[in-house]
Amino acid sequence: MSKYTIGIDYGTLSGRAVVIDVANGNQVGDCVMDYPHAVISEVLPASGAKLPADYALQDPHDYLEVLGHIIPGAIKNAGINASDIIGVGIDFTCCTLIPVRADGTPLCFEEKYKNDPHAYVKLWKHHASQSYADRLNDIASERGEAWLDRFGGKISCEWMFPKIWQVLEEAPEIYNDAAYFIEAGDWLTWQLTGVQTRGYAYAACKAIYIIDEGGYPTEDFFAALDERLRHVVKDKLDAPMVFTGEAAGYVTQKASEWLGLPVGAAVACPMPDAHTAAMSLGLVNDGDMCAIMGTSSCYMLISEKDNSVPGICGTLRDTLTPGFFGNEAGLCCVGDHFAWVKDNIFTQEYLKEANERGTSVLKLLIEKAAAQKVGQHGLLALNWFNGNRNILVDSTLSGMILGLTLRTKPEDIMRALIEATAFGTRVIIENFRAHNAYVGKIIAAGGIARKDPFTMQVYADILNMDINVSDSSQAPALAGAIQAAAAAGEQNGGYATLRSAMDAMVGKCDKVYHPIPENVEVYNKLYAEYVRLHDYFGRGENNVMKTLRDISAQAEK
Amino acid sequence: MSKYTIGIDYGTLSGRAVVIDVANGNQVGDCVMDYPHAVISEVLPASGAKLPADYALQDPHDYLEVLGHIIPGAIKNAGINASDIIGVGIDFTCCTLIPVRADGTPLCFEEKYKNDPHAYVKLWKHHASQSYADRLNDIASERGEAWLDRFGGKISCEWMFPKIWQVLEEAPEIYNDAAYFIEAGDWLTWQLTGVQTRGYAYAACKAIYIIDEGGYPTEDFFAALDERLRHVVKDKLDAPMVFTGEAAGYVTQKASEWLGLPVGAAVACPMPDAHTAAMSLGLVNDGDMCAIMGTSSCYMLISEKDNSVPGICGTLRDTLTPGFFGNEAGLCCVGDHFAWVKDNIFTQEYLKEANERGTSVLKLLIEKAAAQKVGQHGLLALNWFNGNRNILVDSTLSGMILGLTLRTKPEDIMRALIEATAFGTRVIIENFRAHNAYVGKIIAAGGIARKDPFTMQVYADILNMDINVSDSSQAPALAGAIQAAAAAGEQNGGYATLRSAMDAMVGKCDKVYHPIPENVEVYNKLYAEYVRLHDYFGRGENNVMKTLRDISAQAEK
Repeated sequence: MSKYTIGIDYGTLSGRAVVIDVANGNQVGDCVMDYPHAVISEVLPASGAKLPADYALQDPHDYLEVLGHIIPGAIKNAGINASDIIGVGIDFTCCTLIPVRADGTPLCFEEKYKNDPHAYVKLWKHHASQSYADRLNDIASERGEAWLDRFGGKISCEWMFPKIWQVLEEAPEIYNDAAYFIEAGDWLTWQLTGVQTRGYAYAACKAIYIIDEGGYPTEDFFAALDERLRHVVKDKLDAPMVFTGEAAGYVTQKASEWLGLPVGAAVACPMPDAHTAAMSLGLVNDGDMCAIMGTSSCYMLISEKDNSVPGICGTLRDTLTPGFFGNEAGLCCVGDHFAWVKDNIFTQEYLKEANERGTSVLKLLIEKAAAQKVGQHGLLALNWFNGNRNILVDSTLSGMILGLTLRTKPEDIMRALIEATAFGTRVIIENFRAHNAYVGKIIAAGGIARKDPFTMQVYADILNMDINVSDSSQAPALAGAIQAAAAAGEQNGGYATLRSAMDAMVGKCDKVYHPIPENVEVYNKLYAEYVRLHDYFGRGENNVMKTLRDISAQAEK
Repeated sequence: MSKYTIGIDYGTLSGRAVVIDVANGNQVGDCVMDYPHAVISEVLPASGAKLPADYALQDPHDYLEVLGHIIPGAIKNAGINASDIIGVGIDFTCCTLIPVRADGTPLCFEEKYKNDPHAYVKLWKHHASQSYADRLNDIASERGEAWLDRFGGKISCEWMFPKIWQVLEEAPEIYNDAAYFIEAGDWLTWQLTGVQTRGYAYAACKAIYIIDEGGYPTEDFFAALDERLRHVVKDKLDAPMVFTGEAAGYVTQKASEWLGLPVGAAVACPMPDAHTAAMSLGLVNDGDMCAIMGTSSCYMLISEKDNSVPGICGTLRDTLTPGFFGNEAGLCCVGDHFAWVKDNIFTQEYLKEANERGTSVLKLLIEKAAAQKVGQHGLLALNWFNGNRNILVDSTLSGMILGLTLRTKPEDIMRALIEATAFGTRVIIENFRAHNAYVGKIIAAGGIARKDPFTMQVYADILNMDINVSDSSQAPALAGAIQAAAAAGEQNGGYATLRSAMDAMVGKCDKVYHPIPENVEVYNKLYAEYVRLHDYFGRGENNVMKTLRDISAQAEK
């Protein structure tokens, strides 16, 4: 008799539930619903008051309404017996922060506060807390806080403490009345379990919680920001920490009546939505790396040791696959490069050809690029059209195309930029290896991995590695279902360990791109040239990109 | 009572005559006619035989037929009395070479030779003599011929001796039967004067005739090529040398009857067509430079001293304005860059906008580029899409665009390439100055100078110099008319000196672009960055452009 878990994925605009067969990870049903108020950034619906710039709020009523729709909807869509559901697991955007009463009621649900923007959810991309982040960074830097380096020297305004500080400063009454500030993923889990917990990965990734260094920053640090923040951790965040793969609790009678889930079904520790790929793509061994390739690309590598790799986004214990250090790095502009080319670089003949053949300019350019031999176009590009995230961590860098002649065609530029993103990826991987972090296996997902075989072959050739492509298009929600199967445990029809749940439920990669030796040989030569230009323009030998940016900013004043 | 001279301009495809008022240089009539056989490169018309690759021939019958049409036609068009014509002057493409009998009859006029391609005119762009040029260069280099450096270390296959050598090797009977090999400009002059002469500028520019070093190369050198060439100068080229500004002779009775010119009218020393600008734009003082700006740009500077400026095309005495050293340099790709952008870089919206407004994509992009402030686009380009002629003299270099972001628009790239050509021009001018060649005044002509005020303002701002623009569109033919007025002499209604003829007859510049101080300031900063990249990629520090070219050539095999 089959058992099922439900994975719940709360994104920026909608929530989705998928029903997964615990035996093999197959999806048997799903349901999705948009948040009725979406992102609240212009006007607060309750009051009609205009919001200041850079606000991004949400209404927790939406989260409940969506949950009440998608769980019964997914069960119905699956056509299963609800009693066969043994667990649920949530992933949620973060830091998406709610001020709540001691019983979990959001302050914005109260008549007293429903017109105050600070009583609502501050969504991950709420940027009006930037000035607080700036002050926090200055003070941390002055105090020589050791944790600052771990986050590239800067805490983002999207993280938890700048958002809390903004509430304290701009709405002190709400700060005082809030028993807790809580991640939305933790809050939604609480609605199911009746018990407040804190997901470790949220705290580690967005709240400066460093497990090997005593947890959150010290009270002295918070007091240096504002004396009223001295006890912010003890006063506003205090709840049991749960870890990836564990159960945060079990479905209550009340939640069961509301949603149709069995009482006592396991509720997994919630996860950041950005981290679900590691689990749904099955990172299980030292050196496994997933590559989520789309408008930008995210690389997540699991390592047995903390190798202090410089130039990456960060290394955090147990945030990806428990038992491993998770290393995160990425390219902040990948598919965006290709979109820029198709928007700006083509000929009138190509436009006509694309129209006549009923294809897009993008596809036509990639088709023409794919017909070339390696190195034939004579170009080399730097893929920094939106700065460099890793390993230079410098948003002031910009792009370059070199080798242009009067014979250069649009598809040449398209191909050179595709190759440049692969060279940039190789720089990240070689940087891992240079710092003793093993990279053994690549599992790719995302729009480019699924839809663009030419680009994937270029990556295989340039990295000189097999690239495994997963066809899972429900990766985030699948991760929740896997976690739920582990949280439910073997005795309830789930699995004894997260690893055994992953082994059974992660989809097999259905496509592997193998490097072609003669392409590898030419790309090695081109990579050497790429690295030389990467270092020349990116490491301070020639700061012309910064100079041009400064001159441009001056001109636009 | 007005006096007139006729300027005759023989280009690649047509001949033109203009009638000019000697008093003020005004054009009062003209007539143009295409050569009936144009350029003969596929099939020899007389025999129907297919020509080998890289042949470019002409038929001297065409030159005569055109002359017989355009001189009477121009006189008629002017509505003047032919007796008021005091002189004529010819410019002609070169080296455009004819094998002739002692009386000047081209061998191809004879039944015996009319089916032999080698009996015809080898036009300037006849490239089938490349292997002879290669051997000549190798031998000159082995022998350490001092003159080789003066021509950048290489004699072109377009020049005179590779062409003569080809005839000797491939058609020895024609070599033997030819009393002379003669430039078409000298030959046409001979048809008017009845006396063979040689124009100094042709010999200096295309036949290794160095006036300060004993004239042509030595007999030993020619013998080293082929013993049969030992006496080539004495046997095949021997005729009185005439100099710019002098009379080559006077119109004969026969020519008068044929063309309607007065007997005894002066016939000026003929000129290379590429050099006419110096005269028609009025280079008269040390440091005067003309800029002919079009698909490529040519800069001609006159200097009182021979400053041995490296990195330019060459310095030759008396070839531009008599009494001065003429320095020639240029950019081999200017308007071609802008055409590449308009062919490849735009958006579908711009295409629609251009169509709706009835303008071209090129004009639209330049209009949008012109609306920007200096430095606003944040880009810097290297204008080497067709290699670098001066001052790096390296055809293996290629173009670069740096500073690209996702916000970069097509007009940004257009403007960056316009600016790059101006930066490249500044490099040439600063190189002159660094070697003590004064550059004082710029007089611009050509398509870009006449039609593109935005580009001209960019040049003024980047060079920080006034740019004077001449509106003369008949520059080449005007130069011949000025020379003819000097050759006629004051006693015949002309001028005592070439300088006084130029002062009177050269058109005034009707437009001057002045540098705008705030633009100059920003461009100085950008120029410093340009020079740094110019030297980094162009002087061997990073040879990535050559490496990419090699890899591309390998891929295309």
